[in-house]
Amino acid sequence: MFERLRGTRDFLPNEMAARKKVFSSIKKTVEEFGFFETDTPAIELFELYSIKSGEEIIEELYAFEDKGGRMISLRPELTPSVVRVLVSRAKELSFPVKWYSIPRLWRYERPQSGRLREFYQLNIDIFGSDDPRADTEVISCAIKLLCDLGFDESDIEVRISDRRMLQEFLLNIGIEKYHDVLKIIDKREKVSQKDFKEMLLGLKISEPQIKEIDAFLNSKGNFLESIENLSSSHKEEGISQVIESLRRIAQDLNDRGFEKFITFDPSIVRGLDYYTGMVFEVHDRKREFRALFGGGRYDNLAELFGGEHIPAVGFGMGDAVLELMMRRKNIWPEEKVEIDLFIATIGNVEKEVSKILTSLRNSGYKVDFDIMNRNLSNQIKFANKLGAKSLLIVGERDLKEGNITLRDLKTGNEAKITLEEFVSSPSKYLTKVL
Amino acid sequence: MFERLRGTRDFLPNEMAARKKVFSSIKKTVEEFGFFETDTPAIELFELYSIKSGEEIIEELYAFEDKGGRMISLRPELTPSVVRVLVSRAKELSFPVKWYSIPRLWRYERPQSGRLREFYQLNIDIFGSDDPRADTEVISCAIKLLCDLGFDESDIEVRISDRRMLQEFLLNIGIEKYHDVLKIIDKREKVSQKDFKEMLLGLKISEPQIKEIDAFLNSKGNFLESIENLSSSHKEEGISQVIESLRRIAQDLNDRGFEKFITFDPSIVRGLDYYTGMVFEVHDRKREFRALFGGGRYDNLAELFGGEHIPAVGFGMGDAVLELMMRRKNIWPEEKVEIDLFIATIGNVEKEVSKILTSLRNSGYKVDFDIMNRNLSNQIKFANKLGAKSLLIVGERDLKEGNITLRDLKTGNEAKITLEEFVSSPSKYLTKVL
Repeated sequence: MFERLRGTRDFLPNEMAARKKVFSSIKKTVEEFGFFETDTPAIELFELYSIKSGEEIIEELYAFEDKGGRMISLRPELTPSVVRVLVSRAKELSFPVKWYSIPRLWRYERPQSGRLREFYQLNIDIFGSDDPRADTEVISCAIKLLCDLGFDESDIEVRISDRRMLQEFLLNIGIEKYHDVLKIIDKREKVSQKDFKEMLLGLKISEPQIKEIDAFLNSKGNFLESIENLSSSHKEEGISQVIESLRRIAQDLNDRGFEKFITFDPSIVRGLDYYTGMVFEVHDRKREFRALFGGGRYDNLAELFGGEHIPAVGFGMGDAVLELMMRRKNIWPEEKVEIDLFIATIGNVEKEVSKILTSLRNSGYKVDFDIMNRNLSNQIKFANKLGAKSLLIVGERDLKEGNITLRDLKTGNEAKITLEEFVSSPSKYLTKVL
Repeated sequence: MFERLRGTRDFLPNEMAARKKVFSSIKKTVEEFGFFETDTPAIELFELYSIKSGEEIIEELYAFEDKGGRMISLRPELTPSVVRVLVSRAKELSFPVKWYSIPRLWRYERPQSGRLREFYQLNIDIFGSDDPRADTEVISCAIKLLCDLGFDESDIEVRISDRRMLQEFLLNIGIEKYHDVLKIIDKREKVSQKDFKEMLLGLKISEPQIKEIDAFLNSKGNFLESIENLSSSHKEEGISQVIESLRRIAQDLNDRGFEKFITFDPSIVRGLDYYTGMVFEVHDRKREFRALFGGGRYDNLAELFGGEHIPAVGFGMGDAVLELMMRRKNIWPEEKVEIDLFIATIGNVEKEVSKILTSLRNSGYKVDFDIMNRNLSNQIKFANKLGAKSLLIVGERDLKEGNITLRDLKTGNEAKITLEEFVSSPSKYLTKVL
């Protein structure tokens, strides 16, 4: 007997049916926001990841040499592929483009709750617009798709910041080692206050500076209010522009009714080096799980990949933590399959059953029938396991008089009708499962 | 600038939209036949393929050692994974199971027309029934899904045979090297008659035997008629049983109206070693392409994978040749994206646009708007590129009187209405794209 690889999953039809409902809800929301689906290969040149992905991701690559001697890799994230496509086909595109995809991704890391070696990730991105409304679209879409799945503001917190603000703030208090400090701030929630301080001291940041950093990082709260406060205390040109763009995002999120989901939180920086502006993270309010997902602005990536300057904003949401959170709240869909009709047979009625099957399927019904030569009671048991809504009993004797029996498997109600009547107007007797 | 790997594909939204239509038509047909979707990992242990896949497939594996020292492989076909799941979870299943999946597969072979290194393949299988009606279901589903895509009997030929019949025939004429002869027969269409003969002579098959083989392989024709002929000339017990099962398949395919698609063709053996009974291949009538796809019975595979005996029948259809054939017949869907509404703006109307967006998207419409601060004529150009069916013009001046302008982008018809009226009854003004 063979086993599947650790950190990968099999989905039987009932499990798959539940997942399909979740994915189709997500796709529906995202398409209402005007995002279009794209698709890219699961294997890419290794260099695509070595150029920009963080060290952590490089270490976790499923990378190998193919039979042609090229170093290739299973994709650990989608963004490099999408930017590759964008750069190589920029001439035929009309900007802005709003793209989404739900790729399978692979990372060799220790499998644990909410973290798998093979997983799905929804990716949405807007390329070509540096307008704050692009940021709002992306954040709104994130919140809306969670709401459409059944979450509300008591479950979800969206923490928003802007990396440029942090950078300006650090410069203002005399710190220029922006990237090194950023990395430490990114770890802040995972380490003790003491360790955090020591790491900063290690970079020769002074005690008073650390106090200022702490105060700044703790200045979280209502998005629009926090921004108005910052706006009155920071009049410098560089930072005013950032504040103005955050103010528009905050105002727009309020106009769209998402105020209750949002916290302004300057400690959010997102690990990846490539973010350049607004960044956000989505958490469960109870903090039982790690960040559900996050995203932000990455305006420099297209250039890094050899293209023109193309501003970009987006996020990626893995399916594993999402499923955990949905199960915790009991909003993961019921795992069951369904069909419209199962045909049970008594005696030799093959020819008639073939005709009924063909006619109903041509009309779009999901129909199955007995191919195990079982007795009637076992056929009915099986019909129930298939989630059949109705049962048609076709018996040799009844058929001589042109009759069949139709049973509603939910109510148990049964009616004897003519085969002709049933086949000519099935919609009188059956409704379709979605 | 990075390139994608040879033999892989990127799909922009318009290309993706066409493919989605094709895939969703296929899924619809398959689900009408009572097949349920499953999903399995793209990476599996290497041994899963070394145990049963043909040599050809082993040579083409994307196989490598993972960071944990395991030899793993990208899946080159789905069947081993499906059988692995079946065997490991047999206890919780109710047989027969009818499963389908449209996995991505990878094979390192020379990319050419209709053959890629990364491709999609529809797989459908019925496990647990050795009844000929299971065979009919699979073949009928294959034909029906092609019909639903727009093909008819002038495009498609389904060639059916049974390996056991060939085996019985060879035994009857005194040939026991069944597998070696089978491999040569499988190559028959690809080599000259002279080479075919020489390969058989190489196996010490005599000239008279070769003549008999040729005659048998050429005895193709109408399925039911051919079977009736064979039935009268072959009364031996072993072969009669095979003939009876083929007769039932032929009769049932006729009852379902598929007679015109089918040819009985004893030269069909399918390359893979694992087929045990009925085999079939689907070809374009003009033979411009290689086999569109094929399948058959493989009753011994579950045992080979360490499970109980589980009879099985199914097929796999790749997307690359299908697309070529659909394009040739001009039935590949139009490559275009669509949304319900684009909102063009004049002046500062951000707040109102956010409210309109939110309200319409909450009602399920696909809506986009300008985030590039373009002038009206460029916004309208862009709306047309997005395939917007309608255009809403929201202008600062009009809005002071509560008015907006709605334009049908297909007819050009325009109407000025109140914002209130439009937002409260959008269905009076918009229809949804599917």
